[in-house]
Amino acid sequence: MSHPFDTALALDSGDSGDPGTLRGRTHPEWANMVGPYGGITAAVLLHAVQRHPDRQGDPLALTVNYLAPIGDGEFTVTARAVRTNRTNQHWVLELAQDGAPRCTATTVFGSHRDTWSDTEARPPAAPAPETLPTLAGPHFVVWFNNYDARFVEGGMFFESAEPAESTEPGDSSTSTLWLRDSSGRSLDFPALAAACDIFYPRIFRRRGRFVPAGTVSLTTYFHADSAELAAVGADFVLGTAYANRFGAGYFDQSAQLWSRSGILLASSHQMVYFKDDA
Amino acid sequence: MSHPFDTALALDSGDSGDPGTLRGRTHPEWANMVGPYGGITAAVLLHAVQRHPDRQGDPLALTVNYLAPIGDGEFTVTARAVRTNRTNQHWVLELAQDGAPRCTATTVFGSHRDTWSDTEARPPAAPAPETLPTLAGPHFVVWFNNYDARFVEGGMFFESAEPAESTEPGDSSTSTLWLRDSSGRSLDFPALAAACDIFYPRIFRRRGRFVPAGTVSLTTYFHADSAELAAVGADFVLGTAYANRFGAGYFDQSAQLWSRSGILLASSHQMVYFKDDA
Repeated sequence: MSHPFDTALALDSGDSGDPGTLRGRTHPEWANMVGPYGGITAAVLLHAVQRHPDRQGDPLALTVNYLAPIGDGEFTVTARAVRTNRTNQHWVLELAQDGAPRCTATTVFGSHRDTWSDTEARPPAAPAPETLPTLAGPHFVVWFNNYDARFVEGGMFFESAEPAESTEPGDSSTSTLWLRDSSGRSLDFPALAAACDIFYPRIFRRRGRFVPAGTVSLTTYFHADSAELAAVGADFVLGTAYANRFGAGYFDQSAQLWSRSGILLASSHQMVYFKDDA
Repeated sequence: MSHPFDTALALDSGDSGDPGTLRGRTHPEWANMVGPYGGITAAVLLHAVQRHPDRQGDPLALTVNYLAPIGDGEFTVTARAVRTNRTNQHWVLELAQDGAPRCTATTVFGSHRDTWSDTEARPPAAPAPETLPTLAGPHFVVWFNNYDARFVEGGMFFESAEPAESTEPGDSSTSTLWLRDSSGRSLDFPALAAACDIFYPRIFRRRGRFVPAGTVSLTTYFHADSAELAAVGADFVLGTAYANRFGAGYFDQSAQLWSRSGILLASSHQMVYFKDDA
């Protein structure tokens, strides 16, 4: 039986056989409050490029713009290689339903080479995941059941629509958690793209409650190469996220995902719409 | 006489009169080592949307992918509104020369509303710009002459192709500087988009020398609304940038631009290619 993540990623080119025009469908296991989890949509778009016969290299950067809610059911993904250079390749993508675009995206793939290297960022302090409780499910937000999540800091009310006692508004928007696929699937680039969106909107953390909010644009930079991802396997990764500025209906949030051995796998940024009267 | 920045931004729809298909040209004042300064290209793309009669709202997010060097001379910008919602609008753009795409871009515009607000990030410590020397010009990197730049930390050898004594390799990739338009032009959204790219590749800072490097993908989030930009006028803004991880031919860098009064105007991120054998 296929894993829920692979099921959600499934794309086919149908009768046309055109590898740049693909059909997929939403899956109830990945439902968010409105439409699918943004992370799974990012993963599907990245996968559309990865499975394309013209693809060269590994993902370096992915930007997904969320134009309109995706309804339950079928969608079409178009993926077009706009430029292939010696060391990198640029793609333009669109996800549509009923002929209307729901997402636009661009991604850059490239080859990894041996160069000088250093990681300047530092992972947040965190006890080993084995010492922390799994956030008990099933969760109010369905897609969250696909993750074994263990909060180090800034956990919140995923169990119900109501804030728990621990969700007092605070000065810090930071959340830090260990996460892994709850059914033991290994990390790969689409899974990394999906996991970068696991951090609930930082406005919830600051306000201590749900407010209407949705990602407008999401950008992820992939630092890991294939070997580094393979070394993670199905182990926990450590995620941390925070916001810079909230106001006038929008905020940004930035995230990092780290391997247990201290490798920065990805950094990710998003601009989020919210509604919360002053 | 037109200001160099406005000259570089000039676009016209030619005989077609189509506001979504525009002609522009490179300008020697904005030359980088290869092709124009990436920041001016980002500004041109943003301006193509701003001048479009269908445009609604102010910029929220802009992603520019740099596919291939832009040669000296004319280019074409196409700008297409893919989706207009009640509060935001999504655009897809391309910059081409001789029929070949050189940049792809997406941008989200939106309306600002009164909401709860807070800035969690803090500006870096910096003495007043008036107490710091202007980095003397003319500069080896031509476009830099358009800025009055006063480094607080992490300045570097813009005067010549050779590293100055102060450019020893270090542990930190951070640079912080005050900057303003050197001929007194006021800040607006395109100028903000351009200024977010003023930070030279962080690999130079860490290695203490030039290495081949170029932005692959640049994303900027605009936090300021029009009134906040108008309040800055032609005053200095404080910029700071750092990198997270260098390796395997790529690194990311993140930047913030602050008004003197402590308003976070924009946050910006990019993935950069570099070549520096281990």
